[in-house]
Amino acid sequence: MKITERLEKLRELMRERGIDFYIIPSDDYHQSEYVGEYFKCREWISGFTGSAGVVVVSLKEAGLWTDGRYFIQAEKQLEGSGIKLFKMGEEGVPTFIQYISNNIQEKEVLGFDGKVVSTKIALDFKDILKEKNIELKTEYDLIGELWNDRPQLANSEAFILDEKFTGESIESKLNRIREVLEKENCDINIISSLDDIAWIFNLRGNDVKNNPVNLAYAIITVDRAVLYIQEKKLNSEVEKYLYKNNIEIRDYFEIYEDIEKISNSNIIMLDLNKVNYSIYRNLNKGIKVINKPNPSTIMKACKNKIELENLRNAHLKDGVAVTKFMYWLKTNVGKENITELSATEKLENFRKEQDLYIEPSFDTIAAYEANAAMMHYKADEKTNKKLEAKNMFLVDSGGQYFDGTTDITRTFVLGECSDEIKKHFTLVLKGMINLSKVKFLYGVTGTNLDILARQALWNIGIDYKCGTGHGVGFLLNVHEGPHGIRVQYNPQVLEEGMTVTNEPGVYIEGSHGIRLENELIVIKDEKTNFGQFMRFETMTYAPLDLDGVKKELLSKEEIEFLNNYHKNVYEKVSPYLTQEEKQWLKEYTKEI
Amino acid sequence: MKITERLEKLRELMRERGIDFYIIPSDDYHQSEYVGEYFKCREWISGFTGSAGVVVVSLKEAGLWTDGRYFIQAEKQLEGSGIKLFKMGEEGVPTFIQYISNNIQEKEVLGFDGKVVSTKIALDFKDILKEKNIELKTEYDLIGELWNDRPQLANSEAFILDEKFTGESIESKLNRIREVLEKENCDINIISSLDDIAWIFNLRGNDVKNNPVNLAYAIITVDRAVLYIQEKKLNSEVEKYLYKNNIEIRDYFEIYEDIEKISNSNIIMLDLNKVNYSIYRNLNKGIKVINKPNPSTIMKACKNKIELENLRNAHLKDGVAVTKFMYWLKTNVGKENITELSATEKLENFRKEQDLYIEPSFDTIAAYEANAAMMHYKADEKTNKKLEAKNMFLVDSGGQYFDGTTDITRTFVLGECSDEIKKHFTLVLKGMINLSKVKFLYGVTGTNLDILARQALWNIGIDYKCGTGHGVGFLLNVHEGPHGIRVQYNPQVLEEGMTVTNEPGVYIEGSHGIRLENELIVIKDEKTNFGQFMRFETMTYAPLDLDGVKKELLSKEEIEFLNNYHKNVYEKVSPYLTQEEKQWLKEYTKEI
Repeated sequence: MKITERLEKLRELMRERGIDFYIIPSDDYHQSEYVGEYFKCREWISGFTGSAGVVVVSLKEAGLWTDGRYFIQAEKQLEGSGIKLFKMGEEGVPTFIQYISNNIQEKEVLGFDGKVVSTKIALDFKDILKEKNIELKTEYDLIGELWNDRPQLANSEAFILDEKFTGESIESKLNRIREVLEKENCDINIISSLDDIAWIFNLRGNDVKNNPVNLAYAIITVDRAVLYIQEKKLNSEVEKYLYKNNIEIRDYFEIYEDIEKISNSNIIMLDLNKVNYSIYRNLNKGIKVINKPNPSTIMKACKNKIELENLRNAHLKDGVAVTKFMYWLKTNVGKENITELSATEKLENFRKEQDLYIEPSFDTIAAYEANAAMMHYKADEKTNKKLEAKNMFLVDSGGQYFDGTTDITRTFVLGECSDEIKKHFTLVLKGMINLSKVKFLYGVTGTNLDILARQALWNIGIDYKCGTGHGVGFLLNVHEGPHGIRVQYNPQVLEEGMTVTNEPGVYIEGSHGIRLENELIVIKDEKTNFGQFMRFETMTYAPLDLDGVKKELLSKEEIEFLNNYHKNVYEKVSPYLTQEEKQWLKEYTKEI
Repeated sequence: MKITERLEKLRELMRERGIDFYIIPSDDYHQSEYVGEYFKCREWISGFTGSAGVVVVSLKEAGLWTDGRYFIQAEKQLEGSGIKLFKMGEEGVPTFIQYISNNIQEKEVLGFDGKVVSTKIALDFKDILKEKNIELKTEYDLIGELWNDRPQLANSEAFILDEKFTGESIESKLNRIREVLEKENCDINIISSLDDIAWIFNLRGNDVKNNPVNLAYAIITVDRAVLYIQEKKLNSEVEKYLYKNNIEIRDYFEIYEDIEKISNSNIIMLDLNKVNYSIYRNLNKGIKVINKPNPSTIMKACKNKIELENLRNAHLKDGVAVTKFMYWLKTNVGKENITELSATEKLENFRKEQDLYIEPSFDTIAAYEANAAMMHYKADEKTNKKLEAKNMFLVDSGGQYFDGTTDITRTFVLGECSDEIKKHFTLVLKGMINLSKVKFLYGVTGTNLDILARQALWNIGIDYKCGTGHGVGFLLNVHEGPHGIRVQYNPQVLEEGMTVTNEPGVYIEGSHGIRLENELIVIKDEKTNFGQFMRFETMTYAPLDLDGVKKELLSKEEIEFLNNYHKNVYEKVSPYLTQEEKQWLKEYTKEI
């Protein structure tokens, strides 16, 4: 079926159900960043395959809203579909919410599947459209009705993550959550975010590619914990485990009816940004709802001692894989036929050799020369570039291990590079070092620290149009807040045990891209009369390519940090290398 | 009348009027930071003279809430009064709002003078106390009724600040405000903040010590501008000026009745944090109110070209005064009898010699040795210390000139100092330099930059418990937002033409205090593919005492900045000095 045909069928259905505008977002039922195949309704209706975007269809018009990363791709993919591209963030371009409020007429009906829209957005719509007397219809998944060969809802086997990895029992986690509920005078926590649920129940799965989560909801009360999950996902071991922990199991979809049964005397804690509108809508009217992040979100972000020990180990293995890859790459480029895609495979193979490795934690970005200027580049058969013995090759990759999730970027010098490119490489390194070595007073957020990574680049008029760092899960999502390091305000204080990436970069369109990324742990430093000081411990161990470094651009302290870092890399990584690799590493971790 | 007697009289009046709890804050009718004598009701009822504090009196109890700066002073001043001290910010101490909600009984009455409480706080109270069915009585100024020898409401003569200083006519300012009103679909801007009113009408006065404002309100509509001000404050020149500019003049207190006449069809823009509750309460019920900062607030903060030219000039004169003072001080200390108070007078005399000088912009902080560890120290006859030819002397002072307001801090080395003190001095200098020389992308706020001033101190476990910088008015308040540089989030983007202080410090209780403060202007730097870059221009020109500098703690770039700064100081300041002063300055601005 062509896109135009699909749109016509959708409009037929809209007329039938009395809907004038219909929204198709990219989300799943849990507001996940990445979604399973079942949830790709927006792709089905528009043909646009980017990871972010919203389609709005009215009886007369259809539009796609997406961001700068996807303008070119979207333009191509929308050709002939009749769907208009709205370039988000460009001057004069309305948001899809503004578009709807501008175009919808008095008393018309706005529809969307309430299960794929967050309560926050749905309530905002309600507010905005109140003046026009717009009715919301949120009970229909119209795309679901039209999509004949829709993939199955993911139902991977769930598995237990042993306490030797998680460091805390379900019971202990539930107790801590209940303490927060009590403190906030709440009775019930309704949880929809998949990473929270994976963490609370020490369960992992494979329902979303690279994100080892299970599609599930949870309701936690003072004395009960109910997990809503497809029964076929649970083998007998997991069933027994949950039973032993007094977890009640109900079917994935039964949450919607159970929600209706919650009595008005309860006070509910939930995160309006995470819980979908269909759940919220099913709550009894007049029930008191406290909008707060789930208590588990901050608990999950602060890794415990056992998690941290595991993470250090996972990162060491990951560093070994990347170091071996670097040796192979730098030794063989220009001699063997290596491409972005074959290099990706090679790196994946080095990871597969590591103990407890499961899968990549995201699609590897392996980008040569100008391809690296695209921050979220993913090589395919069409774009795949052959690597030559010159210029730089950016590889951003990570692994899911039973003992943790990793995320690392190295930009490799494959041969001769211009002086300017080396200068950019060195200033990126400078930024990374300055953030890595900061000592800060407890109480700051990533917003206070971001400039340390960016300053050397700002000094020459260059910026990177993204944050400097994001939180990372434990055998969970590679992007996991609530903290982060960026210019825009993030109110989350950096707490002991949080892990965060440090990844400044330079992206010059049509020319080159450089990014260096280590992962850091927030740890305590000294306590003085002025308060508790904090600093970062670096977890990532792999060489920063000295072939790109212009020493004269680094300060004494920065050189000291780099030399010390490389000394640690050699000490930690070399025991796992062959004799040749070891010898090579000696050279690439030498003092400058 | 003793405090206990005053409290008894107040309680009598409370019983008479049916009030169970009565709040006496420190504010005037305009939520000003500093208030005139007329408004010192909280001082009258409690005997506590600190600048910040709230008294709550119930029929049984009375309490004073104040912050850490004043704990010791408050304890002394409250002795025997029966008023309990609540130390704000200490663990387990309720805020006065919490205290009232915890202690007030169902259906009791809470009273305060609505004119001295912001609408925001009054509405918060209403919200919090709704459940207990508490009634608010806000029409009585009970202290006013009891205070027999209350000072008069200030009525200094208002004066016109010429356009050669302000750079913009009233008409132009009103037009710009009206454009914002139109854009925000509002009809009326009700303005209560005295700095906004001074700026809009190009008027200054002397109704609050050191803050050249006039007690006034203003109402600006699409075609009218009404100024509410005591008639006796206006001489015929000012009257003519306002008349010529089509400004309607009404008595200061008439705003309360005029507010009642505003019809329900209007949409009002006002700042709930600034407009007092009595004004808000007088608005017709159901009238639409948009809570926004006054449009004039951001306009006022972004100085125009003429204001900036004037400011540069005012700062140069101010720098000349401080340089002359520094020469006198360093040459005569240990020889003459100099005290904190006599030095303050001497500095004031140097300022008085300068063209267009009016008065200090705040009470000078002249603090020797351990006195300087108190951030807001003000010398009096009791604390006044004699200066000797050793250790450091901190002087934070500023002037009101017709061509601008200044704020400068220098810490002077009077003789031998410990190595540690010099180290602290140098690290404060390092922080000041690093913030001064930052280049940043347009869009950042002071929160992004604060760490640059603080980092060198954090590295040795020291912090200063205040912001790094505040905005400054133009012949107006020395603290004037909305922007600022601090760790805590300030959402205001740094815009071209804003002026801001840069004042890191070290405060070691019982030992020493060091602060260095320059004022900066936000200016444009280059525009690249990555956006508009910005930087700071330093306006303040006076030597940074090289006797305190440990060169080995500064980087090459920092030394370069310092040398270049001192070169500018010499070039700009020396033409206004005597031969001896000039020769001395040459030495104190030499390259290191």
